[in-house]
Amino acid sequence: MSDQTFVDVDVARIDDARLGRTGVPEVVYGAGKTADQTRLALRALYERNGFALATRVDPDEGAALARSLPEGVWNAPARAVRCGTLPASGRYIAVLCAGTSDLPVTEEAAFTLEAFGHTVVRRRDVGVAGIHRLFSDFAEVEACDVVIVVAGMEGALPSVVAGLVAAPVIAVPTSVGYGAAFEGLAALLGMLNACAPGIAVVNIDNGFGAAAMAHKIVRARHAGAVTA
Amino acid sequence: MSDQTFVDVDVARIDDARLGRTGVPEVVYGAGKTADQTRLALRALYERNGFALATRVDPDEGAALARSLPEGVWNAPARAVRCGTLPASGRYIAVLCAGTSDLPVTEEAAFTLEAFGHTVVRRRDVGVAGIHRLFSDFAEVEACDVVIVVAGMEGALPSVVAGLVAAPVIAVPTSVGYGAAFEGLAALLGMLNACAPGIAVVNIDNGFGAAAMAHKIVRARHAGAVTA
Amino acid sequence: MSDQTFVDVDVARIDDARLGRTGVPEVVYGAGKTADQTRLALRALYERNGFALATRVDPDEGAALARSLPEGVWNAPARAVRCGTLPASGRYIAVLCAGTSDLPVTEEAAFTLEAFGHTVVRRRDVGVAGIHRLFSDFAEVEACDVVIVVAGMEGALPSVVAGLVAAPVIAVPTSVGYGAAFEGLAALLGMLNACAPGIAVVNIDNGFGAAAMAHKIVRARHAGAVTA
Amino acid sequence: MSDQTFVDVDVARIDDARLGRTGVPEVVYGAGKTADQTRLALRALYERNGFALATRVDPDEGAALARSLPEGVWNAPARAVRCGTLPASGRYIAVLCAGTSDLPVTEEAAFTLEAFGHTVVRRRDVGVAGIHRLFSDFAEVEACDVVIVVAGMEGALPSVVAGLVAAPVIAVPTSVGYGAAFEGLAALLGMLNACAPGIAVVNIDNGFGAAAMAHKIVRARHAGAVTA
Amino acid sequence: MSDQTFVDVDVARIDDARLGRTGVPEVVYGAGKTADQTRLALRALYERNGFALATRVDPDEGAALARSLPEGVWNAPARAVRCGTLPASGRYIAVLCAGTSDLPVTEEAAFTLEAFGHTVVRRRDVGVAGIHRLFSDFAEVEACDVVIVVAGMEGALPSVVAGLVAAPVIAVPTSVGYGAAFEGLAALLGMLNACAPGIAVVNIDNGFGAAAMAHKIVRARHAGAVTA
Amino acid sequence: MSDQTFVDVDVARIDDARLGRTGVPEVVYGAGKTADQTRLALRALYERNGFALATRVDPDEGAALARSLPEGVWNAPARAVRCGTLPASGRYIAVLCAGTSDLPVTEEAAFTLEAFGHTVVRRRDVGVAGIHRLFSDFAEVEACDVVIVVAGMEGALPSVVAGLVAAPVIAVPTSVGYGAAFEGLAALLGMLNACAPGIAVVNIDNGFGAAAMAHKIVRARHAGAVTA
Amino acid sequence: MSDQTFVDVDVARIDDARLGRTGVPEVVYGAGKTADQTRLALRALYERNGFALATRVDPDEGAALARSLPEGVWNAPARAVRCGTLPASGRYIAVLCAGTSDLPVTEEAAFTLEAFGHTVVRRRDVGVAGIHRLFSDFAEVEACDVVIVVAGMEGALPSVVAGLVAAPVIAVPTSVGYGAAFEGLAALLGMLNACAPGIAVVNIDNGFGAAAMAHKIVRARHAGAVTA
Amino acid sequence: MSDQTFVDVDVARIDDARLGRTGVPEVVYGAGKTADQTRLALRALYERNGFALATRVDPDEGAALARSLPEGVWNAPARAVRCGTLPASGRYIAVLCAGTSDLPVTEEAAFTLEAFGHTVVRRRDVGVAGIHRLFSDFAEVEACDVVIVVAGMEGALPSVVAGLVAAPVIAVPTSVGYGAAFEGLAALLGMLNACAPGIAVVNIDNGFGAAAMAHKIVRARHAGAVTA
Repeated sequence: MSDQTFVDVDVARIDDARLGRTGVPEVVYGAGKTADQTRLALRALYERNGFALATRVDPDEGAALARSLPEGVWNAPARAVRCGTLPASGRYIAVLCAGTSDLPVTEEAAFTLEAFGHTVVRRRDVGVAGIHRLFSDFAEVEACDVVIVVAGMEGALPSVVAGLVAAPVIAVPTSVGYGAAFEGLAALLGMLNACAPGIAVVNIDNGFGAAAMAHKIVRARHAGAVTA
Repeated sequence: MSDQTFVDVDVARIDDARLGRTGVPEVVYGAGKTADQTRLALRALYERNGFALATRVDPDEGAALARSLPEGVWNAPARAVRCGTLPASGRYIAVLCAGTSDLPVTEEAAFTLEAFGHTVVRRRDVGVAGIHRLFSDFAEVEACDVVIVVAGMEGALPSVVAGLVAAPVIAVPTSVGYGAAFEGLAALLGMLNACAPGIAVVNIDNGFGAAAMAHKIVRARHAGAVTA
Repeated sequence: MSDQTFVDVDVARIDDARLGRTGVPEVVYGAGKTADQTRLALRALYERNGFALATRVDPDEGAALARSLPEGVWNAPARAVRCGTLPASGRYIAVLCAGTSDLPVTEEAAFTLEAFGHTVVRRRDVGVAGIHRLFSDFAEVEACDVVIVVAGMEGALPSVVAGLVAAPVIAVPTSVGYGAAFEGLAALLGMLNACAPGIAVVNIDNGFGAAAMAHKIVRARHAGAVTA
Repeated sequence: MSDQTFVDVDVARIDDARLGRTGVPEVVYGAGKTADQTRLALRALYERNGFALATRVDPDEGAALARSLPEGVWNAPARAVRCGTLPASGRYIAVLCAGTSDLPVTEEAAFTLEAFGHTVVRRRDVGVAGIHRLFSDFAEVEACDVVIVVAGMEGALPSVVAGLVAAPVIAVPTSVGYGAAFEGLAALLGMLNACAPGIAVVNIDNGFGAAAMAHKIVRARHAGAVTA
Repeated sequence: MSDQTFVDVDVARIDDARLGRTGVPEVVYGAGKTADQTRLALRALYERNGFALATRVDPDEGAALARSLPEGVWNAPARAVRCGTLPASGRYIAVLCAGTSDLPVTEEAAFTLEAFGHTVVRRRDVGVAGIHRLFSDFAEVEACDVVIVVAGMEGALPSVVAGLVAAPVIAVPTSVGYGAAFEGLAALLGMLNACAPGIAVVNIDNGFGAAAMAHKIVRARHAGAVTA
Repeated sequence: MSDQTFVDVDVARIDDARLGRTGVPEVVYGAGKTADQTRLALRALYERNGFALATRVDPDEGAALARSLPEGVWNAPARAVRCGTLPASGRYIAVLCAGTSDLPVTEEAAFTLEAFGHTVVRRRDVGVAGIHRLFSDFAEVEACDVVIVVAGMEGALPSVVAGLVAAPVIAVPTSVGYGAAFEGLAALLGMLNACAPGIAVVNIDNGFGAAAMAHKIVRARHAGAVTA
Repeated sequence: MSDQTFVDVDVARIDDARLGRTGVPEVVYGAGKTADQTRLALRALYERNGFALATRVDPDEGAALARSLPEGVWNAPARAVRCGTLPASGRYIAVLCAGTSDLPVTEEAAFTLEAFGHTVVRRRDVGVAGIHRLFSDFAEVEACDVVIVVAGMEGALPSVVAGLVAAPVIAVPTSVGYGAAFEGLAALLGMLNACAPGIAVVNIDNGFGAAAMAHKIVRARHAGAVTA
Repeated sequence: MSDQTFVDVDVARIDDARLGRTGVPEVVYGAGKTADQTRLALRALYERNGFALATRVDPDEGAALARSLPEGVWNAPARAVRCGTLPASGRYIAVLCAGTSDLPVTEEAAFTLEAFGHTVVRRRDVGVAGIHRLFSDFAEVEACDVVIVVAGMEGALPSVVAGLVAAPVIAVPTSVGYGAAFEGLAALLGMLNACAPGIAVVNIDNGFGAAAMAHKIVRARHAGAVTA
């Protein structure tokens, strides 16, 4: 198990071999970390893999953090920093969202996917209250390998989409809404109970997690036969 | 307030003037009552109003109960008994359900509406996993005064319908589903957070409540100008 | 389906045909949007429909936003902006609230109804702890087409009202209260379990949703026979 | 602390001095006990206090159990057995319930109170959906020392009552209802958030607990000046 | 029903006859009100009853608010303002709390009781982790008419106290704690399930509610025979 | 949209074109259906697609149901019936479970996958309490296209597995456990919060849903380039 | 890691080396297993370790199961079967319970401890409603190495005990109670928030888990210096 | 019971004899206290015991508070102040955490343990997403008397650790995470349902509580035979 190494950096034990082992690099979770701690972790990962990504970065520190790192890029809506990108995969992944308030989560997913080398097909504000908005230019979505659907409130969009496409659907509930939305619980439960088959769900507001799942799906496919 | 009378029947205090006062007669809630208690209450209401209705009747006792009452009719799927009907209103109300497992709740709504004198337009098994099933003969639904939508699991159907019709939508979550459906909680929360305006929600499995709300809506309309 | 168009405005896909299709125009949900995003959306809707409405607008930006728009009106308690109004309907809708802390939600409902062209009959601070306050001038309420009841804490008022009036009751739970009010959950559950028939419920603090439902109810009635 | 004795009976350690110490005797909780275990405990308490009470007794065993005990009386609706009664207090306590399905809990409260020596003023089926039923013969209720209000579903009755009477109100939520009643949770939350002051709440379906609280309230009063 | 009057003050409908009707005056709930709204309401109530009380007053405004009112007194820990007091009752009520963090709720109860004319016996920081602290000077507590027990975290103190005293116990859960205390839910559930009889519970952090219940209990007793 | 047809069968509206449209055929959900209703639906689907599958079939009726249908096969542990299979895909999917009590859910997943034409690599009873059991013959698991991990109680296994394999992981919480497992809630929340990326979750006990998601993932891959 | 072996028995993968590795043998969880599956697992473990234990055995099968196994002993209240015992440790562990309804959980803990070779000091029915029952013969409890406290309802007993003894306290919430006990949730939350330090909690009704924790505590102590 | 004294300090009743009685001194819970109140309590405890500890101290006041007290030491990550230490025990306790965001809770546990005289073996950032990081230097952990495991999100680490070590495991869920982590609920439920025996759980974020439990475990052992 030569791919089971790690690097101790300050208080963190960086799993720098995770990219080789699982196809998804360790990604720095910026929440609750100082900019310095995030920088140290990104640098250690970049040195090993030529690539690093941090999510949930403090919006006041993201731009400066990116400037201080090699190949650093700051994406404000996604609240994420990347250093470099993984090689282009030639694969297409759709990212749909129900409303404009879902954009931060949507962009976290899209930015992660692009950092991982994929092409993203975006559709925004296509919620079920006006479902014809979804149908209008749907062919490009149908042609994607994976479809990520981001929605808050009642979270009904993934069910409708999964009833229409052949690709697997990854559903991302968001905390958008108020009252009985209960910070995303309503959307989460809705998606878990989706009556259309071919849906799996990630945590509330977890745009990164959806992207990582999509990446694992297409990466195996891209790399050629896994089971060969 | 001459319409504020009541009749003491065994352990119950029957609000026999409710029909005159609110337009909805007191309806006997059969759960937890013996057949005898239900019969007494139905008879007292029928004598005053020429009409009586009981819901949640024990399936083993419903047929005999109906036979023992004047104009008694037993509806097994709805688990309801009525004595007589209210005068025909000439109004149309749509009752849609997402799946075949939602039928008992759907029938409770439809049977109540028919007992109250309305015409019911039924659509069954038109859930969002195959949304084209809903669209195929939709014009008759669009022409109704009120649309009741019954759904379990993720409860997404009311949002889609309310985005398409001009009539007010009454959403009825059902306890159909398992796991994270949590006995109807997922559908309830979904409907409360519906992103399409013009939806209001009743209790889980409360087909009767949806019918009573619809009845109050069309009755006022039918009777002519309330505010005149 | 000529009424299924939309307009892409910045990150939003405006469903500008919703008014024609469903009788309720797309309304801008201001939460999480910048003033500029809200302005763009309002303008697009106003151009198409001669009317636009935004709710949950940032209180610090509402007045300036309204001034920058044609026919713009800012309502501070309701936290809403409208551009123009829909034609007067000649219909009366009652809006009752249990306590003075429920006023923001109450005003969101009332302002929306007035923007939609209806006349509002207000009753404030008539909670069940002093139920005689409700009865004192009740005839005007009884004459309305629809009664909206707004209440926090235990949410008992809709049950009492629905036992008294012939009009349908739309219940709006609010997040007013503390401790076991659980941000409106107690009121929501209370209203869903109301023992009086003829009640349907909208989301916690959703004054707009109640108004939209009431609008759909009276609009159909106003327009003449829908089912004719 | 001579009043801190106990008796070991089979697997139970009977707190036979509780009556002297707190004014409420130890009462046998029959759930999960065999008829023999309940009999042993009742006998031990009766021998010490000349009185004993068991609640939540298995309905199939209650009548025989009572027959086998001195002064044994079985009350089927209350599912309770008593041996003897405490001395008459000359006090009146009202027990109201919202619906006929609340009767078992209501009777548990009333039977306990009568066993403790008090006179019970009963009002049944006076829920808020027809609130005039409550007002019709209310003077006798207003004259009581304590008012116990039993209600399921939305649990609104205690708020209305507490706004009308000078006596303290003990609210008992019941598990009557379905769906979003969540086995009594809706009623419990409603009562805890009652907007009328002078209400305190006991556990769901805890008729005995309400009676014990009322007993402690009037007993102190009856016994003369506690604080003198 | 001459005691069913009210006064419209700004947006509030003051139930100024509640004191006469129920023995507890309408008390102003300061949360969500401006200082001016609170002042208006207090003044209206004081004019009618010679007494007024407001709870949950903004700490930054309490002192000035009290100075601007007749007989105004500000109590900072309790966050309450009173104008005058009700006549002395000669009754003693104990107020115990488990920890020093429970003091604000404790003081809300004690200040309300003193404003209502009662004498308060305080015991602070006597939680079950060192139960001997409770026993050390317990006779004065045992002599009280009512015992109010305030506790957060696991809320175990009321059970222990109710097993020791003859007086009725009113339990007040507080939101003190963290993690699985869930803002007072743990204490609330604990108190509702107390195994000692003679306990009733009010809302989380509701010191005022406990005082109002205690007041109703002793007031009836003080006034002489209610049921005579 | 020639693939948007349906067939009305008794009370059901069968979406017989779903296989062509989405790659997953409509599958009959047997819960709450009579054996006759399930048979009718299976037959209609088999006639159109040469394949049909029903899950959650009543164990007492499964064997007879299968015998009455063409190519019918009953799988008792999975509680599922299939008619025929889809063409062999040549793909391998791993299905792991943490404990032997998770077997029914595991078999529902495995039987569905085999019916859909895939080869299943099973590993049973490899929970984290003895994690070496997982590692002992892990290479075959690592070679699969997708890994489904079924676990109840704390649901920790998917996190560990996803940290080790390159394939995407579909996590299935089960209702196995008691007490604070809360019918699968603990496992569900654990999986949604898995710290290893590349996991997505389906409903509690939803073995079929996991299989459908896996099928969509490998089917696209098997069919050749979707995005080509 | 020679202690990381396992044995495949039917559908189970027995971790027969767990006793050597962790000091607690793999114990068979009987729920959801047939008597045959339980027998096979017990036999495999007994052959390796000379000891085996199964909990949550079907009461109808326990006696026969024990007879069919070497050194088999069935304990009905505990619903457990053991084959042999571990060597006597000479250690004392107290097991207290609040009420007689907690006995099954209490016995599961006590029987497991005795099977593991320890001496159990039992105290039953010593709940806080009569706390003097606990104090009466407390010295023997104080002398134990570990104190296990089993309680349902409000779960207050562990706090009181932990404030009195030097030994660590393991708290076991039970599902005893009704209404707001929510199947043990109230007791669980109470114990997690215990204000006395030196308490840790296991799952609801998990008598075995408490015994295993106690065993690990005293075993290390018994074996001599672990850290030497 | 000479060890049942207390000292009244301002509003607190300090249980200064708790150290002698239970082996754990009363520790000051700083949340909701002013620096002055904390100082008074620490001083009173230090004077009696030569040792005092406060947790959850306001970070802005901790350093100054420590300087004003004898032997005062401020630990910023742990947000704790101690005055002196208890005598060295010669015992080793491991404190592991899953991620770097768990550090504050981890340090609260470690600082408390060191104040109580024990040696702490720390392992940080060894979560199950890269489980090899845990195994790399595990022998020192295996040699400890007790293992404390701190984890947020899914809380899976304690199960894995308890399956590997002979020492008892104390699990501390943290509020680290977002969405369906529900402020630590997911981790708490996961740990309560851990499938490996020999785990007990403390409150969310309760590093101190874990340390107090560990202290009680090793102290008894250190002091020699408790049961002798």
